[in-house]
Amino acid sequence: MQQRADFLTVSTSDLDAARAFYRDGLGWQPLLDVPGEILFFQIGHGLVLGLFDAHAFDRDLEGDPTAPENAAPVPNAPAAPAGFTLSHNVSSPEEVDQVVERMRAAGGTVRKPPQTAAFGGRHGHVLDPNGVLWEIAHNPGWSVDPDGTVRLEAVESAE
Amino acid sequence: MQQRADFLTVSTSDLDAARAFYRDGLGWQPLLDVPGEILFFQIGHGLVLGLFDAHAFDRDLEGDPTAPENAAPVPNAPAAPAGFTLSHNVSSPEEVDQVVERMRAAGGTVRKPPQTAAFGGRHGHVLDPNGVLWEIAHNPGWSVDPDGTVRLEAVESAE
Repeated sequence: MQQRADFLTVSTSDLDAARAFYRDGLGWQPLLDVPGEILFFQIGHGLVLGLFDAHAFDRDLEGDPTAPENAAPVPNAPAAPAGFTLSHNVSSPEEVDQVVERMRAAGGTVRKPPQTAAFGGRHGHVLDPNGVLWEIAHNPGWSVDPDGTVRLEAVESAE
Repeated sequence: MQQRADFLTVSTSDLDAARAFYRDGLGWQPLLDVPGEILFFQIGHGLVLGLFDAHAFDRDLEGDPTAPENAAPVPNAPAAPAGFTLSHNVSSPEEVDQVVERMRAAGGTVRKPPQTAAFGGRHGHVLDPNGVLWEIAHNPGWSVDPDGTVRLEAVESAE
């Protein structure tokens, strides 16, 4: 199995709020928008973020309930996004503050105000309207070669 | 704000189980491995997956509790990964079954057996040892140009 992810799909309670935040607030261009179902943005080289209606997300995972291979019932309440962070790296400490403010102005909620990070740079965290957590980071130990290879110096332990 | 994610960081209860699954089971090459703290894999052009010790994940998000800008207390129990899926696309329906079986053999748990997907291809879902959900998919409507631009035909509604 190649070590590669092509899509990150997130369970989204309010697709209209997601559209207002990413498209209207941040000016992102949708790759595909199926109202009431799913909203896709390309967020990297060959990488797609899918904001998937939470109930459709669950139904898709459970599959056709009449199919014999699908035993588990669909839960009543969709799972909210939890336990993960999407990081957006910027090129200066000042830009961390600027992008965090841009996201707040677009309808995000600041979760961790911009500050010195354990890895030696500066970062801040913002929740999108559906609880997706973004870290805005300036990491002097990180770079990407033109061919996409990531360079990452050993992080300082937060211990 | 550019529409780009550079890292996906996941709260991980058992880093040793993650290492055994991705490195030893699937043969992935770590980008950086800080035992007891974080394990990084490059999973795309300029894209890094970070498996971050769950307690360290929470501490990093909360920041220094003595800093005046960090008001919120660290919760007692780390959040488990929920409400998102990482998709790994393959080039044939048969390969969906092969990769799902490879992941199962490496220590994953099959969540949705391989079957016809609502988007018109074939897919199956596997949980990693820490509850991170992977979809293995063959999607005939998806392709990536050499420059990284994603092509995606309109998905069939699952309604």
